[in-house]
Formats: sequence, C-alpha cells, structure tokens
Amino acid sequence: MTTSFKGPKPSRRQFLSGAAAAGAGAVAAQASGAATPDPLITEVQPWATGLGEGVDATPYGLPIKYESHVVRRNVEWLTADTISSINFTPIHALDGTITPQGCAFERHHSGAIELRKEDYRLMINGLVDKPLIFTYADLERFPREQHVYFCECAANTGMEWAGAQLNGAQFTHGMIHNMEYTGVPLRTLLQEAGLDAAGDLEDKWIYVEGHDASSNGRSIPMSKAMDDCLVAFKANGEALRKEHGYPVRLVVPGWEGNMWVKWLRRVEVVDGPVESREETSKYTDTLANGISRKWTWVMDAKSVITSPSPQSPIQHGHGPLVITGLAWSGHGAITRVDVSKDGGKTWETARLAKPGEKMALTRFYLDTTWNGEEMLLQARAMDETGYVQPTKEQLREIRGENSIYHNNCIQTWHVKPNGEAENVEVS
Amino acid sequence: MTTSFKGPKPSRRQFLSGAAAAGAGAVAAQASGAATPDPLITEVQPWATGLGEGVDATPYGLPIKYESHVVRRNVEWLTADTISSINFTPIHALDGTITPQGCAFERHHSGAIELRKEDYRLMINGLVDKPLIFTYADLERFPREQHVYFCECAANTGMEWAGAQLNGAQFTHGMIHNMEYTGVPLRTLLQEAGLDAAGDLEDKWIYVEGHDASSNGRSIPMSKAMDDCLVAFKANGEALRKEHGYPVRLVVPGWEGNMWVKWLRRVEVVDGPVESREETSKYTDTLANGISRKWTWVMDAKSVITSPSPQSPIQHGHGPLVITGLAWSGHGAITRVDVSKDGGKTWETARLAKPGEKMALTRFYLDTTWNGEEMLLQARAMDETGYVQPTKEQLREIRGENSIYHNNCIQTWHVKPNGEAENVEVS
Repeated sequence: MTTSFKGPKPSRRQFLSGAAAAGAGAVAAQASGAATPDPLITEVQPWATGLGEGVDATPYGLPIKYESHVVRRNVEWLTADTISSINFTPIHALDGTITPQGCAFERHHSGAIELRKEDYRLMINGLVDKPLIFTYADLERFPREQHVYFCECAANTGMEWAGAQLNGAQFTHGMIHNMEYTGVPLRTLLQEAGLDAAGDLEDKWIYVEGHDASSNGRSIPMSKAMDDCLVAFKANGEALRKEHGYPVRLVVPGWEGNMWVKWLRRVEVVDGPVESREETSKYTDTLANGISRKWTWVMDAKSVITSPSPQSPIQHGHGPLVITGLAWSGHGAITRVDVSKDGGKTWETARLAKPGEKMALTRFYLDTTWNGEEMLLQARAMDETGYVQPTKEQLREIRGENSIYHNNCIQTWHVKPNGEAENVEVS
Repeated sequence: MTTSFKGPKPSRRQFLSGAAAAGAGAVAAQASGAATPDPLITEVQPWATGLGEGVDATPYGLPIKYESHVVRRNVEWLTADTISSINFTPIHALDGTITPQGCAFERHHSGAIELRKEDYRLMINGLVDKPLIFTYADLERFPREQHVYFCECAANTGMEWAGAQLNGAQFTHGMIHNMEYTGVPLRTLLQEAGLDAAGDLEDKWIYVEGHDASSNGRSIPMSKAMDDCLVAFKANGEALRKEHGYPVRLVVPGWEGNMWVKWLRRVEVVDGPVESREETSKYTDTLANGISRKWTWVMDAKSVITSPSPQSPIQHGHGPLVITGLAWSGHGAITRVDVSKDGGKTWETARLAKPGEKMALTRFYLDTTWNGEEMLLQARAMDETGYVQPTKEQLREIRGENSIYHNNCIQTWHVKPNGEAENVEVS
C-alpha cells in the first residue's frame, strides 16, 4: 500500500482463503472438473467479436444503462411542493470522494432558473467605497483559485432526530456533495469595491442573495467573507449545472449549504445580520426549552458508512469484506475515523484513502472479514480540532428532539446474517 | 491568497483600473448619468419572479443548454473508420483539474462495448502458482485505493510534429483526461495468484488484454505492474462510463493511454514482452534513420495554455487578463510552469493552483495585464526529476519528423490585437 494505512492490514492468506472461496478459484475448479463450467469463460462472447458503439454518439456522455439506479432521488414528502425541493446524492453507490455534478445533491427554493452568462450581473453595494456591478466576463479577469469542498444541507440527517426513519444512506446522509470548485475569492471582489477603506471590518456583515425568485438571502459575518468564500463558476472542471447555480454561485466552505447562494445576484455590505426569513423562521434549531440556537453555520464533524448499508447490502459470501464510508468536518480536516461492528462497544481505526483535506469529504475503508455474524455498524469521525462525532444520545441531551437541522450524530446500520442492512437506533 | 503564489501578484490598483474599465463600474456610471442604463439591472427579470424547473426532471443531470458547445469532438480524418476512433476533451473551455467523465477524452479500437457487471470476468494466468478468475463482486472485496491520474494518448499533439496543424487546444492537446480513479492495486491480485513464488520478478512481464474484439493487448514490465497500476472500477466517484471501460479498466499511471486497457479481460504473467500489434506496428516512433524507438511508455512533462487559445479568444477589453493552462508529467509531480508572451525569449513563472501531484494534471495561472499587444504565448513545464519541456526544434533534432506519438514540445499560440489566437510555429 502506498497510501497511509492506519488500520490493521489483512494478510494475503486471508484473501486467498476468502476471495478464492467466493468465486475467484474458477480456473482451478474447472481444471479439476469439480465445478460447472462458466460459459462466460468457456464460450466466445458477442462483445469479443463484434463492434461496439462509436464515440460520435456520445459528445457528452451519460452513465451506461446498467447504472440507471445510481441517480439523485427526490422525496415529495420532505418539502411543501415538488418545485420547492431537494434531492439526494446516491452515496451508497459511489466510491472515492468526488461527486459528479450529474448526481450531486442540490436544493433550491423556487426552482432551478435558466440564466445566460451574457445576462448575468453581480452587484456589490452597501457599505463600500465604490459600488460595482460585475458581468460574467469581468469575473473571469480576476485571479482564480481551486478547492475541493463539501456542501452539506443543514437538514441532512434531520429526519433521524426522532429515531431511525429512512432506510438508506442516500436518504439519511445524501444531502451532501463534494466538488472541485473554481472561482474568484469573494475577498478580491470586496476589496475591488473599496471595502478596506470602509472602517472596522469586524463589525461588518454581508447579505447575499440569488437571482431566483426566492432570493434565498443570508447574512454572513465579514470574517468568513474575507477568509475563504469563493465566487465560483466551475465545478469539477466544467461550468456549474443549472441546478447548482449556473453561471455563478457562492461557496462558503464548511458552512451549511443554504448559505452557498446560487445564481448569485448581490452582495451587500451591512453593519449587522439582516435576520432574513431563511435565517430566522428557517434553518434554526429549536431547543427543548423552545428557544432557538443562534448562528448555527458550521457543519460539525460527521461520518457515515456507505457500504454495507440498506441500499448496498453484502451480496457475496463469507470472508473478506470492505467496509467504506465518508467523513467530513466544517472545522477543518478529518484526522481519524473509527468503525464499530457492535454498536459502539468496541472500535477499530479505519484507513483513510488520503490524508484529510480541509472542509472536503474523506473516504475511509475498513478492510475486514465477515462470517455472517450480525453487526451494528457505526463510524465516528474526528477532526483536526480534536472534536469527536457524538452519539445521538449525547446530541439529544444537549439539543432535545425539536431540531430538524445539524444532526451530526453517529449512524447505525444493523447488518443481518443474510447481508441485508437496516437503519436502527441503539441506546 | 491562501494557495501558493509563485508568480508576481497583481496589485489591487491594477484591477481597479482594469476590471472597472471593462464594465464593473456600471453602478457609478449610471449614477453619474454617463452610460446607457443596463436593463439587466434596472428592470425586473423574469427569472426573478417565476418558478424554475423542478429537480425531479433531472435525476441524472446534464449541462445547461447554453454550454452545449463544451463537448468532446471527434475528427473523422484521424482514424480509418469512425467506429475505430478517438475524441477530444474540450480543455479550452474547462478550468480546474478534474475532467468530468461526460466530456473526458477516450479512444477505442473496436467500439465501446456493453458489458454487465454480472457478465464480467478477469483472468490472471500464465507464470503464476494459482491461475484465478475474478468476478466483479470478487474485486470489490480487496482493499481499494484512490488516486487522481491523467490519462494521455500517445498520439496527443501528434499532428503537430510537421508544423502547426490544428487550430485549437482541444484538438492539439485534448487527448487527455484527469480523473479520480478508485480500484484495487494490480499488485494485490497478482499476489493473490501466487506471483511471489514464481521466481525472479525482474525478468517477468504481464500481457494485458480487454474484452472487446480488438483486445488491445499490451506488454507491461512487472516492475510497473507491481508498483502503482490499479484495476479500477470507479472514476470521479461513480462507475466508469461505457466508453471508459465499464465495468473495469487498467490504470497505468503516467504511461501512455493505450496501455490503460479497458474492459480488462486478462492479465497473463509472461517471461518477456509479447511484441503485440499495438506495440510494434502501432504506438512506436520511427526516427529519421528509419529505426523505431523501443519502449516509449512514459509520457514526458508537457503543458499547454488552454486560455487564451484559438477556441478561447480574449473577448474583453484591455487590462487584467488571466492566462491559464494545464501541465503534467508521467515521471512525477509538476514543480514549475513558466509562461512566455514573446515566443520563448522571456519567461514569467506561473502560479500553480495547488502543489503538483504525481502523474496528475496541474492547473497554472498567470495573472497579468494585456493592452492589445500581439503575443506569442507559450508554456513550459518542469517536473520533480528536473526535466524541462523541450521546444519543437529540440525534439525534432533528436526524433526527426517521422513520429506520430510522444510529441511533448512547447506549443505556441499567436494572440492578435483583436484577441483572436492562432496555432503557429516559431523558430
């Protein structure tokens, strides 16, 4: 292994006995006459003799038809109208860390609008020396940066506050994506508008809104605006998709997804938070005493096992098993992920595919053995601040059960002897 | 800037005079009554009042219609039949480093076949203790790795040997993609077949072939097979696309793309190179004396400016200009990229968006100023071995002009006063 390997490394012999038993010993078996010949080996297959499809048929390619189940899912019951909706990344079927735009989670409040680059304008106004309006072509003239960041909806895992509700990682944890964003630092544009002559920045805020009818206005403290926010126009190398805010969206690393305003229209420098609809009646967490928490922007460290999981059961026999999942933190880089098979009684440290990167998804693996025993699978993430992902019980003690947003508790899958998995709650 | 910044950093004042002149001063201009009011600012637009499209319409999303020109291109004249063809990544229109699968370069020799995971088999045979056949499910049980790697066709830039031929970075340099691959190290599967008991590995080779009719057989020395080759099943998080080898392809980091065998069928351990059609009559470089170079696998360090370029002219006024492009090396990480505006007489060191990663595309930027002067734009890449990308003249001196493959010379774009760019050759 060339990557860092923090967990126990299975021996080669373990795989020899395991994978070979599952089917990898077919050559030897056929030689001894012990098994039924596999026609996929013994007979010439049509794909080995004929011509496949030409590339001219796919100037912009789509997934093969056999993967038609690996798509975003919408659930009608979650929002008042399907036009005011949300959809879920099929994280149970993905691997690695990048989310393709075509199946990347997104949420919009009044539909996905179609806005040409030529018609795009971005205004910076309010407490600035020089209010400015930028065209798309203007934005392309400023120095750009690239960063891979996760974007998670504040409501991700929200239905689970009350107990195990949704049967699948896509639905419990799929309101997240992770893409390579390219854009201009918001700081650069604010400075262009003469912000640094506008007095003490510590007291200032920005109010950002989108071109869509909802406008989805949000207040952001100036310290964050000047730190790492990006005015982004590309994701995973290409233009943003319509539903991701084409042609320009705001990227607010590590902070809840609804602040990543799409179809970005205006950034107003103000002297305090605006207390808009989206940050008062929505996107707030009500505690047991009826009082709501103030300013819950950062997405705390969290993780989920994507396979095995309810939508990705174990379908092979006993022996080697790869347990894998995703971890992330809005406070910085993931430093460690532990996996439990017994509902949190004992833990094994998983292997991180790559060292954790700030505010980006980290893939973890536990290369292990399974012989049909029941498992209560859990993962728990730790980030560079020393924070450890809490249990649901710990979170409820502090937050009560009124919340919809900011549920970053440890998730449990019950894996049965037949390999199927179910969303359960352990106490 | 939070990223490394190796080039000269333009001052803020530079942008104030530049971008504002280009249109970003509209607010001030309107306030003074000097400019025609912009109806996109002064009038309420339809996208701000109506509902956009719902997400249920896009379970797997495609680019917005306004980006329909950002697609792979095929050229009929390059290969004998369109079914035996190649296509080009629209690198002139992308930014960042990740190539979306939907527009990622690929080449196939007998069409893109459709092979279900259930019908997939991978045989390892030849000089091994225990010949094995793996199903797709077997492969998923071995420890996986993830790496972002570039895949470049040996023929990329091949038409340029004889002089400036093709007008656009997509056609001169677009036979390349860069994706996050997930798979099992080939080493792991070879060890599973008992390779380490098969004698001295240094003398051994593997011969790999695909399930398609062409089989595209290639010989690879064992040292590379045991080093970093991946048996990959995901790219950018999701299943490989059909045309990229669904469900399984070989990844041979830094080596020419035709060795990345798609629809991987068989890995035979042999005691020497097979000298197959694809490594004798094809994919060899004939020198001026008529003798062909032997074993030209590694793709040497190379770079190209993607914008401005013939397909991406300068369309804004004078002032700030972002020059950007891609650099890569099959020998390791890119350490530096220089940009010349005068055909190689003087050079400025570009800013790398991130530190170079081994055998992966690196994005570079030169944040500069342009006042309508003619430019002969060039980029030259350097890698961690100390290698410097050569000029076409230097390459011709060694290789002559008979070659098709392995042209990694410095490319020149002639930018005219009107912002248009043309592929030219400088001596």
